[in-house]
Amino acid sequence: MTDTPSLMFLETAEAADAVERLFAREAGTFAEIGRVIAERRPAVVSTSARGSSDHAASFFKYLFEIHAGIPVASIGPSVASVYDAPLKLDRALHVTISQSGASPDIVAAQASARKGGAVTVAVVNVADSPLAQAADIVLPIHAGPERSVAATKSFIASAAALAGIAQAASGDEALAGALARLPQALSSACDVDWSPVLPILSGAASLYTAGRGPGFAIALEAALKAKETAQLHAEAFSLAELMHGPMQLVDKGFPIIAFVPEDAALASSTDSLEKLRRLGARVAAFSSREVGEITVATPATGHGQVDPLVALVGYYRLIERVARERGLNPDTPDKLKKVTETI
Amino acid sequence: MTDTPSLMFLETAEAADAVERLFAREAGTFAEIGRVIAERRPAVVSTSARGSSDHAASFFKYLFEIHAGIPVASIGPSVASVYDAPLKLDRALHVTISQSGASPDIVAAQASARKGGAVTVAVVNVADSPLAQAADIVLPIHAGPERSVAATKSFIASAAALAGIAQAASGDEALAGALARLPQALSSACDVDWSPVLPILSGAASLYTAGRGPGFAIALEAALKAKETAQLHAEAFSLAELMHGPMQLVDKGFPIIAFVPEDAALASSTDSLEKLRRLGARVAAFSSREVGEITVATPATGHGQVDPLVALVGYYRLIERVARERGLNPDTPDKLKKVTETI
Repeated sequence: MTDTPSLMFLETAEAADAVERLFAREAGTFAEIGRVIAERRPAVVSTSARGSSDHAASFFKYLFEIHAGIPVASIGPSVASVYDAPLKLDRALHVTISQSGASPDIVAAQASARKGGAVTVAVVNVADSPLAQAADIVLPIHAGPERSVAATKSFIASAAALAGIAQAASGDEALAGALARLPQALSSACDVDWSPVLPILSGAASLYTAGRGPGFAIALEAALKAKETAQLHAEAFSLAELMHGPMQLVDKGFPIIAFVPEDAALASSTDSLEKLRRLGARVAAFSSREVGEITVATPATGHGQVDPLVALVGYYRLIERVARERGLNPDTPDKLKKVTETI
Repeated sequence: MTDTPSLMFLETAEAADAVERLFAREAGTFAEIGRVIAERRPAVVSTSARGSSDHAASFFKYLFEIHAGIPVASIGPSVASVYDAPLKLDRALHVTISQSGASPDIVAAQASARKGGAVTVAVVNVADSPLAQAADIVLPIHAGPERSVAATKSFIASAAALAGIAQAASGDEALAGALARLPQALSSACDVDWSPVLPILSGAASLYTAGRGPGFAIALEAALKAKETAQLHAEAFSLAELMHGPMQLVDKGFPIIAFVPEDAALASSTDSLEKLRRLGARVAAFSSREVGEITVATPATGHGQVDPLVALVGYYRLIERVARERGLNPDTPDKLKKVTETI
């Protein structure tokens, strides 16, 4: 383990500035998307994305359904690229999320959605990418170049952009306030002490990450990062699902990392984690409240549904350390490359 | 390991009769659902389910989108039960899948969808359950009592019922033919030889299950069963997603079980599996075609998008054996009970 900071470590710290730029520069774009939704009154919002970007889409799904009351359907890119099945989307808004805006299947899925009648919104980091050029509305996330293979600041900025769409569609003021406070919270989150979680992961072969609602979406992202950078078999569950079939794996010492914001799920999540602890699990929670055995105290934005994004800063730092302790370079996983091209 | 057959083993063999009863007795219900979809022309179909039933919903999502061209949105039950957020579903059909029809959060999600304007369809095994009583249309799956905690025949019958809805909505004749042949194929599948897969699982700490489109939905179900009955940490991926971040875990001897039907994804799936094999993975495929190192020859229905359901019969038998070889009783996982009640 070297002491040179990894790109993943450095880029995580750049998330706060990225989100600040995003909201400062794209106020007009958010307003435009809000107008389109108000006029068009879509019956459904469809999304297309892969990998980390698809977890940002899950985060969006919860926020948009809860705040705008419109169902969100995640469309597998294969429906267009493999099965060549055009969807009827004349009453839809279609949102694509892609850092590079370059993966052919994602570009094809957007083209197919447009042909099906949808108004298309591309949430991208590369603002002149093929995806952006073909979209009706482009929402650039302003994360700047990302050099680590593991997406960090681009994930947080994409998810923040999508939360901004949910805010624009609903006009929710509490959400607006939390998004205004998000850059400061992301910045403070660089100083949280995640080191108490290290012992529960040392020597672990498996890990569950968990949450409910928007916290579950962040658990999905956390699990992917653990596999990708630390070669640790982490799997994400809604905390409700975890308490059934998947619980059968939970024996003495089994590590669980939960994202538990102060929202409507706080009490039931705390109960579930206590049950898991009684089965012998080692439970760590990222939360602005004290929850269970180990809590990584996470700065609050004032809205529990936004806070899991803040928690991710500490989690990225934690898993970067786990990777390095395992002798791995989190920036260059040997089997992966940065821009994914899938058919 | 005892030689008394488990309930899971026996109930898997009852899937063929269940599906035969379903299509014989519910022809009128399928026709009614087809009529409602033709008249209402929903802009979206929303689904609610938990655990295995939610994997049946994923199977439905691919079949319905590909054949009926209408997007399917899986709604997390927490949106209603935890976040109390009513969705606008006046242009929607809402499909709930539940073996018992008794879990409070699922019943609440259906009530919320109905209040939001949706026509509700309940796909249930217990035809007089609270869920069924509150639905606009009830589609009983006729699987009979299921005593093993691990759902087998009820999963296959639910998924077949949902494929029947996709057929009724699209009028697709190839799909109709495959569903007519499904009971016979499920029956023949009891005789397939899955024993060549056993060596790649013995001593495994992790397993990836994979597929594309409908095959991915079956991979989700396969992964849950491995955790639930054999305490093996199996995780499911779309084969497209697996080739990115998750691939970083794939080292020499890492087991992968793929569901590879003869459909539009056959060639790209075969390529992906060959790449994984070159990384050192031990790859087994359930397929009606010879695919890679180990193929479990699976009876074909004549439609590649239905075949993964047939493959599941052999997979259930395989994982039942793995559980027993690990000294576990697949019928009574010590931490679980049959009817799940989630808030």
